[in-house]
Amino acid sequence: MAVYTSVSDTELNAFLDYYDAGDALSFKGIAEGVENSNYLLHTTKATYILTLYEKRVSKSDLPFFLGLMVHLASRGLNCPVPIAGKDGALTHNLNGRPAALISFLDGVSITKPDVDHCRQLGGALAEFHIASVGFDLKRPNQLGQKDWQPLFEKCRARADEVEPGLAALIDHELAKLDAIWPSYLPRGIIHADLFPDNVFFLGPDFSGIIDLYFACEDVLAYDLAICLNAWCFDGKTFDKTRARALVSGYSQVRPFSELELDALPLLCRGAALRFLLTRLHDWLFHPDGALVEPKDPLEFLERLKFHASVTGPSDYGLE
Amino acid sequence: MAVYTSVSDTELNAFLDYYDAGDALSFKGIAEGVENSNYLLHTTKATYILTLYEKRVSKSDLPFFLGLMVHLASRGLNCPVPIAGKDGALTHNLNGRPAALISFLDGVSITKPDVDHCRQLGGALAEFHIASVGFDLKRPNQLGQKDWQPLFEKCRARADEVEPGLAALIDHELAKLDAIWPSYLPRGIIHADLFPDNVFFLGPDFSGIIDLYFACEDVLAYDLAICLNAWCFDGKTFDKTRARALVSGYSQVRPFSELELDALPLLCRGAALRFLLTRLHDWLFHPDGALVEPKDPLEFLERLKFHASVTGPSDYGLE
Repeated sequence: MAVYTSVSDTELNAFLDYYDAGDALSFKGIAEGVENSNYLLHTTKATYILTLYEKRVSKSDLPFFLGLMVHLASRGLNCPVPIAGKDGALTHNLNGRPAALISFLDGVSITKPDVDHCRQLGGALAEFHIASVGFDLKRPNQLGQKDWQPLFEKCRARADEVEPGLAALIDHELAKLDAIWPSYLPRGIIHADLFPDNVFFLGPDFSGIIDLYFACEDVLAYDLAICLNAWCFDGKTFDKTRARALVSGYSQVRPFSELELDALPLLCRGAALRFLLTRLHDWLFHPDGALVEPKDPLEFLERLKFHASVTGPSDYGLE
Repeated sequence: MAVYTSVSDTELNAFLDYYDAGDALSFKGIAEGVENSNYLLHTTKATYILTLYEKRVSKSDLPFFLGLMVHLASRGLNCPVPIAGKDGALTHNLNGRPAALISFLDGVSITKPDVDHCRQLGGALAEFHIASVGFDLKRPNQLGQKDWQPLFEKCRARADEVEPGLAALIDHELAKLDAIWPSYLPRGIIHADLFPDNVFFLGPDFSGIIDLYFACEDVLAYDLAICLNAWCFDGKTFDKTRARALVSGYSQVRPFSELELDALPLLCRGAALRFLLTRLHDWLFHPDGALVEPKDPLEFLERLKFHASVTGPSDYGLE
């Protein structure tokens, strides 16, 4: 949850002057996103999300993120879209920070996804990958495979506080993955954080994707590997049926090569390590009294161990 | 801000089955209220606030709070109203806690109230006092004058950590106010927490009152004294013009006796002490990592000193 910056009625009205978006009817800080301050705004014209970008999001990345939303929406993907101001700009100053007015997306996140949710998610992810083709801004993955080692350097000395032996295990995984990481696979723009809280459904039907603030260029199948980690475990237990549905939903929209399929266990192992590392970092270094409760890194240690133990795609229920 | 209890889509849908309120279109935790978990819910029928009552609100008080909202709304006051379920009940179980579905009120809180806001607030407070007449449930003020001494007992040993000499000053104030507290004044149901964040405006116009979870029976003019503390200071500086507007707005709706006017400095002094004490308590005893940032108690120490120094209503700009 996150509302870091408070916005007064006067500041809100000054911000709304940049837009032709009506007058404020209600304005409430919401517990959504962990990187930014988010407000739900009803005006005489529509409902919006007002996002105020805090320091964890680099200002220079905003044209990529906001431009990507516009691009994806223009290709028919249901994602939030920033509204242009009267001057055509997508961000304007609010309390000394850049802020955007973003279209409101109906939908509810699913806490315990079932097989049908996973099938629809797979299709939506493939559509995301296809729709992003042709978007011409670049953003490298700042949490990609090459970034894991330096991230771990900040944590190594204290890693065993969280679990004895953790530092050695991570060292082993980092070396192993660095030697065999399949960076030759098809690349494109990936969401990179498509956890269930970033996907909306209306009743049983997929309705949209939110929170594109980790989107970047990377291996497409790695995005699927993130989803397999995020959607197909119950605690430490992997659910093959959901995994099969997820991959099958994906490949019905974007054909999935044998090379990509074969690399999936490795990509899953890397994805589990990536979330283990970022959660470990946040666990060790979150400031006292932070509004965001750090998530348990060990959840992803279990998942990492599972992926490291598999012999091939068949262990995921895939052929 | 407060979202203490997370609610899954499945739990939400089970809760909505108690109501005839449509299907969920979106559901977001909001940063509103400090006692409860609040969600903003859009359904196919309307927009609601879903409030989940955490342990700080006593279950046995819910019929009073929810019944009062229904009563006030039926008398034309614009406040949130709990929606009855298909079974007629105003609360239903959600994650093991009582929860209510409450009508959504348009409006935006004012951070820096001006004279006109204060005049309208005064009128609205008087309407609140008049509209609550005839509501037949009772709830004593649990933070009334008689409760200040026991509350301070929990804090005395550590009060000087916050400000040297604070314990002695509060002891003096407690004794003084206990000797001369004007409990003979007209009583009724008061809001008891009508700070600017609990009052909505639409553009320049008053639109409604929220957060009735401190409402109780007490001296009516004490409610006005709380508002004078909450709306008429800029830091430690008292604004007579706003105070005059507030009291005049009030007395145009509910005539204000000379007895009440004369007691106002004392009531203001008590109100400042009440908020000093509760803030002091929360400051000293808030748990590490609490979602709610404790508010600075010393703000009300300054206000208390101001009220203790006045010689009569004329120091407030009142005659």
